[in-house]
Amino acid sequence: MRVGGIAYRTIGVADDGRSVEFIDQTKLPHRFERLRITTLDEAVHAICTMQVRGAPLIGAMAAYGVCLALVRDASDAALEHSVVTLRATRPTAVNLQWALERCRAHLAPLATNKRVEAAYALAQTICDEDVEACAAIGRHGVALIEAAWQRAEQKRAVNLLTHCNAGWLATVDWGTALAPIYLAHERGIPVHVWVDETRPRNQGAALTAWELLQHGVPHTVIADNLGGHLMQRGQVDLCLVGSDRTTQKGDVCNKIGTYLKALAAHDNRVPFYVALPHSTIDWTLEDGVREIPIEERSGEEVSHVLGQNERGRACAVRIVPEGSPVANYAFDVTPARLITGLITERGICAASRAGLQSLYPEKS
Amino acid sequence: MRVGGIAYRTIGVADDGRSVEFIDQTKLPHRFERLRITTLDEAVHAICTMQVRGAPLIGAMAAYGVCLALVRDASDAALEHSVVTLRATRPTAVNLQWALERCRAHLAPLATNKRVEAAYALAQTICDEDVEACAAIGRHGVALIEAAWQRAEQKRAVNLLTHCNAGWLATVDWGTALAPIYLAHERGIPVHVWVDETRPRNQGAALTAWELLQHGVPHTVIADNLGGHLMQRGQVDLCLVGSDRTTQKGDVCNKIGTYLKALAAHDNRVPFYVALPHSTIDWTLEDGVREIPIEERSGEEVSHVLGQNERGRACAVRIVPEGSPVANYAFDVTPARLITGLITERGICAASRAGLQSLYPEKS
Repeated sequence: MRVGGIAYRTIGVADDGRSVEFIDQTKLPHRFERLRITTLDEAVHAICTMQVRGAPLIGAMAAYGVCLALVRDASDAALEHSVVTLRATRPTAVNLQWALERCRAHLAPLATNKRVEAAYALAQTICDEDVEACAAIGRHGVALIEAAWQRAEQKRAVNLLTHCNAGWLATVDWGTALAPIYLAHERGIPVHVWVDETRPRNQGAALTAWELLQHGVPHTVIADNLGGHLMQRGQVDLCLVGSDRTTQKGDVCNKIGTYLKALAAHDNRVPFYVALPHSTIDWTLEDGVREIPIEERSGEEVSHVLGQNERGRACAVRIVPEGSPVANYAFDVTPARLITGLITERGICAASRAGLQSLYPEKS
Repeated sequence: MRVGGIAYRTIGVADDGRSVEFIDQTKLPHRFERLRITTLDEAVHAICTMQVRGAPLIGAMAAYGVCLALVRDASDAALEHSVVTLRATRPTAVNLQWALERCRAHLAPLATNKRVEAAYALAQTICDEDVEACAAIGRHGVALIEAAWQRAEQKRAVNLLTHCNAGWLATVDWGTALAPIYLAHERGIPVHVWVDETRPRNQGAALTAWELLQHGVPHTVIADNLGGHLMQRGQVDLCLVGSDRTTQKGDVCNKIGTYLKALAAHDNRVPFYVALPHSTIDWTLEDGVREIPIEERSGEEVSHVLGQNERGRACAVRIVPEGSPVANYAFDVTPARLITGLITERGICAASRAGLQSLYPEKS
């Protein structure tokens, strides 16, 4: 998508054909910086420190992390080490495991002198497929926005609510939940997005607002607490969020607080859709609340807020008294019963086993 | 309650018998400062800038604002001006109107030379009654915590969740939602409080955590997004919140985000109680969602976060990109159907017309 009028992807190979370039998301929204890395350790660091984040983008970075490892050492041991190390970076988003398993299955049978080129080709394929999947999600999902616009008799903008960042910054391009919104905007359907700031890391305020602003999509940033009130007052036509892991029966694990918005949508009969590429589906799991591991992150994300001070410098401020403990679980699970539908690259289905099997019959 | 081992009230008359002293809540949790004011304008400023906040405390400050106005001019016009000016400070909490109507009704019939002493006596009475009401709320509400402890077979602490600050800082002393918790703690019942940080102003992180810390009550500060996940995992025994206005049928208007927690409690069968003195009940209203005016506050509370920088100085940091609009509604309404019960100074009742009438038969 566009930044300052120029089209970017979040990640890709640099001119040298080996280094990996990506947008440093920890600097946004105040600075747009691209980083270039050349080692597995740097790829691990980028994921752990959330320079890159978002389930699909983590998968893409993992694939490039394997590439960077193999450039130095293409042995079986090095391949295995890279897969194990990268998989340990973050526990919840399943795309990471999916991408790494795909790399291992594809590369392990090859002769070591074939692995580097094959790894880069596969990483490129994973990225291209992600872009295509997100574009397809956009094409399927835009119908929901068009329908909402018809219901509003084309008299006002369609009000959407999103949580965290499931935009192009969370993927390679287009985004998942935001892809239908970008497409609606391009088609001239007036849209307005309520952007949950998404404490504690503020990915909504920092990333979603920034990408919508860059792309010219009307939006309003709100505290996470506000969404229920807006839905009560009829000010939300449609909720659209992403997913970090989706079970075979349609439970969705996504950024902490998603469940609360799904409850409010259900209570106010606001359609609640989740957009995800198939790489986010974990076919081995059933009950999301019981089975999905939830990442616990540093308490500093709660006790401190990172922003820009009046002199334009990055600055962390403490908002919790010294001595007060904090807790920081990064994801929650929204049970399928609260989800109106899933938007995948193959179409829209019910959040249920039957719904997912209708789109992915090869998995049944 | 205690600060550094010394017992305080949030507000009171200074040694000179005329000035009003109160804790400046905008400086907490990092600095404990008491301010002294002598004019109506300063009282208005204190409420508008939230140096004092919390429905019961606003009522107390309003009564003292009338006192300060009358010291300078005890005429009918000055009394009326003070009431009108103070009432315009904040629209949602009904205690403000309640206290001002009480002042006007009591003082207007008096000769002007009797009004100043009578106003101070009434303000003192309003404060003392608030302390007694909160203490009574504590005595009634502690039974719920004791019962939860029995259900846990006295084997672990009772886990409570609260939103915003309904502690002693929101009242003159004791608090509303926190009063039962303080009493349980004093009685030796092990409690642990999940403290919602309560964006955008962070009254949970700044005030509730601070007062619990000062008083030695175990607690953990969490992002507002976390409560649903905790309830899903069985980590909350009881939710206790305050109210800024309660309708005759038991709808509760409280800090923005309360409704989302009530939905999560309902979905997980966690008891959800609201603690309030009778001054918070608006007997003229029925449907909270339709009828209660919701205050809209400055967008800076959303776009910026106030905290303490690494050098220990107060500092606001911007977290939303320049150019992104924000919206900031300060309260939402939790429908009575989601509330397990109301805890008032007269006892616990259902959140319904019949429930409230059982405790306040004189209002039926």
